[in-house]
Amino acid sequence: MSPRQQPVLGVLGGGQLARMLALAAAPLGVKSLVVDSAADACAGQVAPLVVADWTDYAALEKFAAQVDVVTFDFENVPAETAHWLAERVAVFPAPQALAVAQDRLAEKTLFRECGLSTPDFMTVDTREQLDQALARVGAPAILKTRRLGYDGKGQFRLREVADADAAWAALGAQAPAHGLILEAFVPFERELSVLAVRGRDGDFRTWPLTRNWHVDGVLSMSLAPAPDSDVLQERATELARILAERLGYVGVFALELFVRNGELLGNEMAPRVHNSGHWTIEGARTSQFENHVRAVLGMPLGDTGVRGMSAMFNWIGELPEQTAVLETVDAHWHDYGKQERAGRKVGHATVCGIDAGALAERVQRVARLLDRQPQAQPVLDVLGD
Amino acid sequence: MSPRQQPVLGVLGGGQLARMLALAAAPLGVKSLVVDSAADACAGQVAPLVVADWTDYAALEKFAAQVDVVTFDFENVPAETAHWLAERVAVFPAPQALAVAQDRLAEKTLFRECGLSTPDFMTVDTREQLDQALARVGAPAILKTRRLGYDGKGQFRLREVADADAAWAALGAQAPAHGLILEAFVPFERELSVLAVRGRDGDFRTWPLTRNWHVDGVLSMSLAPAPDSDVLQERATELARILAERLGYVGVFALELFVRNGELLGNEMAPRVHNSGHWTIEGARTSQFENHVRAVLGMPLGDTGVRGMSAMFNWIGELPEQTAVLETVDAHWHDYGKQERAGRKVGHATVCGIDAGALAERVQRVARLLDRQPQAQPVLDVLGD
Ligand SMILES: Nc1ncnc2c1ncn2[C@@H]1O[C@H](COP(=O)(O)OP(=O)(O)OP(=O)(O)O)[C@@H](O)[C@H]1O
Ligand SMILES: Nc1ncnc2c1ncn2[C@@H]1O[C@H](COP(=O)(O)OP(=O)(O)OP(=O)(O)O)[C@@H](O)[C@H]1O
Repeated sequence: MSPRQQPVLGVLGGGQLARMLALAAAPLGVKSLVVDSAADACAGQVAPLVVADWTDYAALEKFAAQVDVVTFDFENVPAETAHWLAERVAVFPAPQALAVAQDRLAEKTLFRECGLSTPDFMTVDTREQLDQALARVGAPAILKTRRLGYDGKGQFRLREVADADAAWAALGAQAPAHGLILEAFVPFERELSVLAVRGRDGDFRTWPLTRNWHVDGVLSMSLAPAPDSDVLQERATELARILAERLGYVGVFALELFVRNGELLGNEMAPRVHNSGHWTIEGARTSQFENHVRAVLGMPLGDTGVRGMSAMFNWIGELPEQTAVLETVDAHWHDYGKQERAGRKVGHATVCGIDAGALAERVQRVARLLDRQPQAQPVLDVLGD
Repeated sequence: MSPRQQPVLGVLGGGQLARMLALAAAPLGVKSLVVDSAADACAGQVAPLVVADWTDYAALEKFAAQVDVVTFDFENVPAETAHWLAERVAVFPAPQALAVAQDRLAEKTLFRECGLSTPDFMTVDTREQLDQALARVGAPAILKTRRLGYDGKGQFRLREVADADAAWAALGAQAPAHGLILEAFVPFERELSVLAVRGRDGDFRTWPLTRNWHVDGVLSMSLAPAPDSDVLQERATELARILAERLGYVGVFALELFVRNGELLGNEMAPRVHNSGHWTIEGARTSQFENHVRAVLGMPLGDTGVRGMSAMFNWIGELPEQTAVLETVDAHWHDYGKQERAGRKVGHATVCGIDAGALAERVQRVARLLDRQPQAQPVLDVLGD
């Protein structure tokens, strides 16, 4: 018998997403190989790490020869790198799909073509165009870089038209390289995301809708399945499917949505496993990480049903003391093994319960012990606590 | 702020148990460092691996300096190695506890002292003593090496007294080094194991009893919680607690039991995470692997409650085609990343269901698709299929 060869998953970017992908890949018999420019990238604790820049083609050549498929922990890998790799090895999602999700204009245009409304927007390349856009879109509004934004970075909120100078001072310099877009500020009732996965064979599945709360543009809490969202679930699933098929998408993605007057508006599409899907590790029968690995390697997708209800606390900047979570029934600790730094995602905790009552009690307990009541309150309000 | 230091778990032995320990350690923010003499030890795919023998004290010295605590994937680490390490770093379970579990005589003596009956037995050092033992214990019986047995290795079954010569021919040569023991063959009604964990602070928990089926001395299937075992559960938990306290045990262990005439008999104690507890990864709120990591590092223990019922298929020698499991709802694939070889444990699959009916249907499906009906049948019989 010739020695068996395990499939190898190549991951561009070695942050917590790569780390959780590698942890999910191992039981499937899949080895991981991660590329990151930082020698201490946290995925390197659980998988071999190639330390290289996105333009280090000698290193990438060797990397491509060692893996069966390449995927992304980081969506802002330069398009050239993704295309270059795609000439050598299977890359999923395909660089074309990635490119759309990297550009807020392409993304919003696609949303509209697929029948998903978006907030009013206008592209902005010059100071004059910002005025024109403000005149059309109105205030309040948000000026965003078209490319390379994440966790609310590259954004400026304009309360009134008079904030135009400040907005331009903050982001105008990025207009030539990355482009800007002015979006109407949406007084949404809720934020939701739909996590979806599409296999190489076109098999398509979604997890139940997740309700999300952001603080300063960064995800703070998630709750799934989002209560009272049966009608929206159907619509969101349909939209995600149309988008995925249009893009020939393979892998997991998140479609971030606003609900305004009961209608869905498209905010953005994350072409990768997503922070709002971390609850699926314990809360669903197959996690987003496992299904992403399965999808990109052409394995059958796993069931996306849930085990009950789940709430996720995001740990930003620093990890709280872990005891409160470790001692709470069906609460699960996730330390990404990163150094603490203001604004950095360093971990999360998922709390599960068979129903809203059980979940609320445990969320309440964790929040109280950690003195995190303000963070948990929106979830508790929804759970009727 | 000084950079944070993550705790490091040292594991002696780099097989599937070390691999699953490392996968469970990562979300807790715990790094793993594994020692094995084989450069391709499968835990090395998910954690850094030190390639060294148990007597390579230079390598062990460096290893000890890099870890916060040492534990075992492999219970037959030489006692000298364990003691030597324990002088340099915390070792859990302690070498003294390990020593008892390594010797079938010491183990059975302890069981009896703790009020747990065992099969009749006699130690055997010479050919003459084998005859004497057979006269007392009777046939059928099993001759076993006192030390270094696992997966039914180092055992010889005697159907009748006349098999004594064959038994001695098979194992007599090991008598001087490892000692032998003759055990009465127990016509048991069932085999059960109780998985238990004890923390550094003495906190003690058990998972629900697991029912096990062996083929040729190797675990083939497990089912948990073992149906109809409420009374036995209480008794087994009590015995496990007494044993753990007597040994000052820290970490997870399995107590393997026979049920004869409705009474528990002690077979052996595995001083580590155990094959019959693999179902806890998906089937319990905290897995045996996570709780072992927590225990040896002095973290609070997690809840050992179950999410429903679970059945485990052990893959021995070779992995079946994975599709059947990947496509079954709430069925979970575990490939250890090892080369296939006759008799080798290369993976397992855990199938979960909210109740016996749901579980039986899924187990039946997997067994049918894989043509493994004989393997699954005992579980299906118990589930009332
Ligand atoms: N047009 C808008 N109207 C109202 N709120 C908005 C708008 N755009 C963004 N936000 C708020 O800011 C959050 C982050 O915005 P966005 O998703 O554009 O940022 P990002 O940097 O791409 O973040 P991510 O890390 O989710 O990719 C949104 O989830 C929402 O709470
Ligand atoms: N005295 C006995 N009477 C009946 N069956 C026995 C007896 N001893 C062992 N067996 C059978 O053989 C199996 C393996 O035996 P044992 O647990 O002693 O082996 P081992 O090599 O130590 O295995 P493990 O890998 O479980 O540590 C038992 O689970 C049981 O099915």
